[in-house]
Amino acid sequence: VSAQVVPLLGVLCYGALLAFDNHAADAHLAPDLRRRAAMSELAAAEMTHFAALADRLRELGAAPEDAMAPFATALDRYHASTRPRDWLESLVKAYVGDSIADDFYREVAAGLAEPDRSVVLAVLHDDRHARFAVTEVRAATETDTTLASRLALWGRRLAGQAVGQATATVEANPSLRTLLADQEPGGGFEALVERLAAAHADRMALIGLQN
Amino acid sequence: VSAQVVPLLGVLCYGALLAFDNHAADAHLAPDLRRRAAMSELAAAEMTHFAALADRLRELGAAPEDAMAPFATALDRYHASTRPRDWLESLVKAYVGDSIADDFYREVAAGLAEPDRSVVLAVLHDDRHARFAVTEVRAATETDTTLASRLALWGRRLAGQAVGQATATVEANPSLRTLLADQEPGGGFEALVERLAAAHADRMALIGLQN
Repeated sequence: VSAQVVPLLGVLCYGALLAFDNHAADAHLAPDLRRRAAMSELAAAEMTHFAALADRLRELGAAPEDAMAPFATALDRYHASTRPRDWLESLVKAYVGDSIADDFYREVAAGLAEPDRSVVLAVLHDDRHARFAVTEVRAATETDTTLASRLALWGRRLAGQAVGQATATVEANPSLRTLLADQEPGGGFEALVERLAAAHADRMALIGLQN
Repeated sequence: VSAQVVPLLGVLCYGALLAFDNHAADAHLAPDLRRRAAMSELAAAEMTHFAALADRLRELGAAPEDAMAPFATALDRYHASTRPRDWLESLVKAYVGDSIADDFYREVAAGLAEPDRSVVLAVLHDDRHARFAVTEVRAATETDTTLASRLALWGRRLAGQAVGQATATVEANPSLRTLLADQEPGGGFEALVERLAAAHADRMALIGLQN
């Protein structure tokens, strides 16, 4: 029965590897060494998540690369369509992406049996990173409403692309769809997406980027 | 007295941050997901080293970014002058770079007081990564002498650039030069470089890339 969880662990695993890659690239946008190091640490944390998920996949007899492969194109497309143009966009993207991912992990974990539940809950993002992003974005936008509007629009674009690519991913992977439907008696994947979008909107308001 | 160690920790700290960055970029050269993940894990390990060194710098009252700044140009130049063109070159570079760094760490640590000695020894690279690189390079070159020659040349170029940039770094930072001279009664920095070069040559022979 545990093998049913392989596609789910696979998509989370590839998500972590890709987040690593994107945060590492985004570190080049940092305006100074201190911030570059902070974004690099954020990237490295994704590989800790990756390793935990890959270990569990191997335990289940699945090669991580095989479990990840079906999801590479859709997740690559999300990142290719949301390349940050500057440091603040990269921070908003990291914050939005990590938060949506965490909401998703928590929802999904609730429906899993042990040990998979604990594996998924263990890869939630460190609050420290979210605080770093929020502090930086708040400081930059406090007195600059034009910047705040631009980043608010960026946040909406990120969420829109995330929902679009997540939907495409689930459509293209029936086993993932079944898994999510099984554990989401309250409406399956579509209801899950709505909850994630609502939480995202609340978060954008909190960071001062509602629009 | 501990503050004298700040430039040394600073150069190691920036070296780790930059190695992270380069391994992360090199992961794009990987021919498949499994190898891409392996190089990404190698990158992430550098940030563990970075964090340990940065913590110690803060303990000594030094901002890591200030301690790193004097060494950024020279180390950036080393990496800019040794960009791998393919996956195997990236592996040889990781192997050569990590090994020379470890030899250097061990030499330097021997002359340090605690707790700095332990901090530096704790950032030695994981053997697992060296074994991965050696296995991949050996498998690829075993039946391909042209490739072996090219990679042997590449290894010499890496060592040459490393020595050149290390020398420039030490010349430009008198405090680092003094620190190394103090703890190297057997000839100071130049003798250290010779020992590192000899160990490098032995290693290249071991990996099957002597020329």
